[in-house]
Amino acid sequence: MAQARIGLIGLGVMGANLALNIAENEFPVAVFNRTGSVTDDYIASAGDLARNLVPTKTLEELVGALTKPRAIIIMVQAGAAVDAVIKGLTPLLDKGDMIIDAGNANFHDTRRREAALSDLGLNFIGMGVSGGEEGARNGPSIMVGGDKSSFEVIRDILEAISAKHDGAPCADHFGPDGAGHFVKTVHNGIEYADMQMIAEVYGLLRDGEGRSAANIGQLFETWDKGPLKSYLVEISGKVLQTVDEKSGQPIVDIIVDKAGQKGTGRWTAIEALSLGQSPSTIEAAVAARSWSAVKDTRIAGEALFAGLKVETGAAPISEDDLEKALLAAKIIAYDQGLNLLSAASVEYDWDLDLASCAEVWREGCIIRSTMLDEMASAVREGLPHGNLIFAPRFAQRIVEGSSALRRVVASAALQGLPVPAFAAALAYFDTMRQGRGTTDLVQGQRDFFGAHGFVRVDTGETDQHGPWASDIAHS
Amino acid sequence: MAQARIGLIGLGVMGANLALNIAENEFPVAVFNRTGSVTDDYIASAGDLARNLVPTKTLEELVGALTKPRAIIIMVQAGAAVDAVIKGLTPLLDKGDMIIDAGNANFHDTRRREAALSDLGLNFIGMGVSGGEEGARNGPSIMVGGDKSSFEVIRDILEAISAKHDGAPCADHFGPDGAGHFVKTVHNGIEYADMQMIAEVYGLLRDGEGRSAANIGQLFETWDKGPLKSYLVEISGKVLQTVDEKSGQPIVDIIVDKAGQKGTGRWTAIEALSLGQSPSTIEAAVAARSWSAVKDTRIAGEALFAGLKVETGAAPISEDDLEKALLAAKIIAYDQGLNLLSAASVEYDWDLDLASCAEVWREGCIIRSTMLDEMASAVREGLPHGNLIFAPRFAQRIVEGSSALRRVVASAALQGLPVPAFAAALAYFDTMRQGRGTTDLVQGQRDFFGAHGFVRVDTGETDQHGPWASDIAHS
Repeated sequence: MAQARIGLIGLGVMGANLALNIAENEFPVAVFNRTGSVTDDYIASAGDLARNLVPTKTLEELVGALTKPRAIIIMVQAGAAVDAVIKGLTPLLDKGDMIIDAGNANFHDTRRREAALSDLGLNFIGMGVSGGEEGARNGPSIMVGGDKSSFEVIRDILEAISAKHDGAPCADHFGPDGAGHFVKTVHNGIEYADMQMIAEVYGLLRDGEGRSAANIGQLFETWDKGPLKSYLVEISGKVLQTVDEKSGQPIVDIIVDKAGQKGTGRWTAIEALSLGQSPSTIEAAVAARSWSAVKDTRIAGEALFAGLKVETGAAPISEDDLEKALLAAKIIAYDQGLNLLSAASVEYDWDLDLASCAEVWREGCIIRSTMLDEMASAVREGLPHGNLIFAPRFAQRIVEGSSALRRVVASAALQGLPVPAFAAALAYFDTMRQGRGTTDLVQGQRDFFGAHGFVRVDTGETDQHGPWASDIAHS
Repeated sequence: MAQARIGLIGLGVMGANLALNIAENEFPVAVFNRTGSVTDDYIASAGDLARNLVPTKTLEELVGALTKPRAIIIMVQAGAAVDAVIKGLTPLLDKGDMIIDAGNANFHDTRRREAALSDLGLNFIGMGVSGGEEGARNGPSIMVGGDKSSFEVIRDILEAISAKHDGAPCADHFGPDGAGHFVKTVHNGIEYADMQMIAEVYGLLRDGEGRSAANIGQLFETWDKGPLKSYLVEISGKVLQTVDEKSGQPIVDIIVDKAGQKGTGRWTAIEALSLGQSPSTIEAAVAARSWSAVKDTRIAGEALFAGLKVETGAAPISEDDLEKALLAAKIIAYDQGLNLLSAASVEYDWDLDLASCAEVWREGCIIRSTMLDEMASAVREGLPHGNLIFAPRFAQRIVEGSSALRRVVASAALQGLPVPAFAAALAYFDTMRQGRGTTDLVQGQRDFFGAHGFVRVDTGETDQHGPWASDIAHS
């Protein structure tokens, strides 16, 4: 007897919270977990919301509990587990039913799964969900890819459970097959850049000025009331002001500085390169996490270079400079992220609406910020040459911020403090405002040693060669 | 009637020169080209060397002309053409024969082909060849991967035709399957970084000081007599001092600044990321080439930001600073390249000899330089924590050079001139001498929003969480 509008497989933290969110929005949801006792405990602790939860103990029971066309969310570990669940489900489903993978899948896997299920007459939805545990429970940002008409079937549920920005749901359909998971991947790549830039500010204040964690945390708390207002700045302020109960120290001082990675930042960088893109701020953030892993090496390096004198000519950096630099560098990171989305949209024929991407990121997700609303508006107004930094709303801020960013990068370089993401942002900006760059020399070198040819500035003739050919033959 | 020790398919520029090189070293070589007239013309123009060239018009004829075990070099365009030639050859070969792909293959393709041919009892050698046309003709650097005993069969030929460093051949076997092509790929990645750093110096002098191409070329010519002595510095001096015959302008001024890419730099960056590595100098060089492609965007950016005032506090950069900075940044790029080779060696079980890599790069290839001899020695002596920048031979140079690099990066940032590779090199160095970095905050953020856990500094306990969990639940 069909009782539920939607099913959910996998009652880990994310799945459990997502199902509670669905139930609280008055959609009956059938739940299943591989270990049945987990389901029992879950229902028992769901309190009043249990009225909208339908516990099931087999996949057959789950499928039987759903109204048609059936919609089943999978929230299990990305990778082989997803394939295993799909394999178990497909024989039980009818044409037109849909499976929704809500995990952090690689979008290539999503494309593969979508194609395979499509051959069976089934719909496969790849759905990126951002916001952590709390978002899953109270309102995440939801990025959907796959068959549009399938999305329409569950649209009311997704919009109801999602975060809202001024009443507008932070849930949308972005395109076929892997589009949703790709948008989520780029979200995470931008998240890496955001976090790294915040960490660079923290490092400049901690190591350059000897400030305490609490003092730096207060500064972030202040910034969270201005143009930098965002979830990541907010929680940075909170983390830095949190005291470890055991030691009485600021908690950040007792955390080992080796950053974990689940892969989405790295995927973003790899996919970007495959698409001919170089989102250097994201690459720098991925690099910083990678390099953090070799702590023994860094400790050895510190000892080896202990006598190294850094430069003393660095001008002091004001808090205002840091705030403006962070703002400018952040805008540049989003510019690179949006360019990557554009490139993927062309390559995979997704017809992504970049403004919608910015809109669903306004609330619920980890990178949510006040600036995203303005970014969405800027995208809707049209980005000159596809670049956010060229948009009227942002160009002036970039002009002001870039001055601060210059001083910050210069000062950090002279002081010996690493700011890979800030430096990458500045180099990108300065490249994008240089009509004539320096790769004319690179083309000259390539033609010299490999006869790769070049284009002439004056005549536009292609495949030209310099008069060095004879030189090569005799050298 | 077998007449030749080795065969060669593909008489394009590289293949034609390689066959002449083999012939000149008195090894009879059977040659084949898909278009027979090319072969006729080739033999006709080979002069005296025709005595060692055996023209063939069919693959059957080619195979019949070879002594056993047969060894056939393929020098055709990387990709599908290689698979097509292999498909045509395999039915004609006997067990123990070998096919040698001397093109710029992606090492994943080489691994695939090696496995497929191995199943047929055939040997497949992936052979990276660097040095451009001139190297192919007069002595390239040769990087071999595949079955070791097959390499031994042709070792005398490869050593004879290769470049020599103080009599030592720049040709070696690095490991099974894709090892040789991977070493070649990383060679190219380092080449990208080398070229980009030279271009950054050129940009600082051209745009920062208004120097002419010839003047900058003279400086490179001078540097080529000192510690920077290298093929790329040499040809940069030559390119910059070359005058375009048509316009009478320096040739670099009539070359459009859009850099081409054949893919090896990008592959290096992608493979590095897949292996958890971030060779940021190579990534920056790939980025600079990618960004050069959007010239219209850059022209628009220059116009849009024409009123932008850069900072005036930049200290002047001396030629000495630039020379030392280039040297330091280059050492850092090689450090990152060697780390990448190490990581791949572990992942693919190649047991790469990094010192041999540096040794075969000493002559013949594009990145050849006097410094590579010393790098090879440093690797033989053992790299502390695997880092070239920690090696006694280089640490002092890095200390001196890093000061110059700081001034260069700071000045470039303030002047508004992009130096992505220099900045990336400096950020890497400063990270590697920072025992405590800033990812403790990143771990704090990750635990705050995703309960990802951290390791405690004081107790070493893993999977610890901050006291913010309740905060999340109520927010």
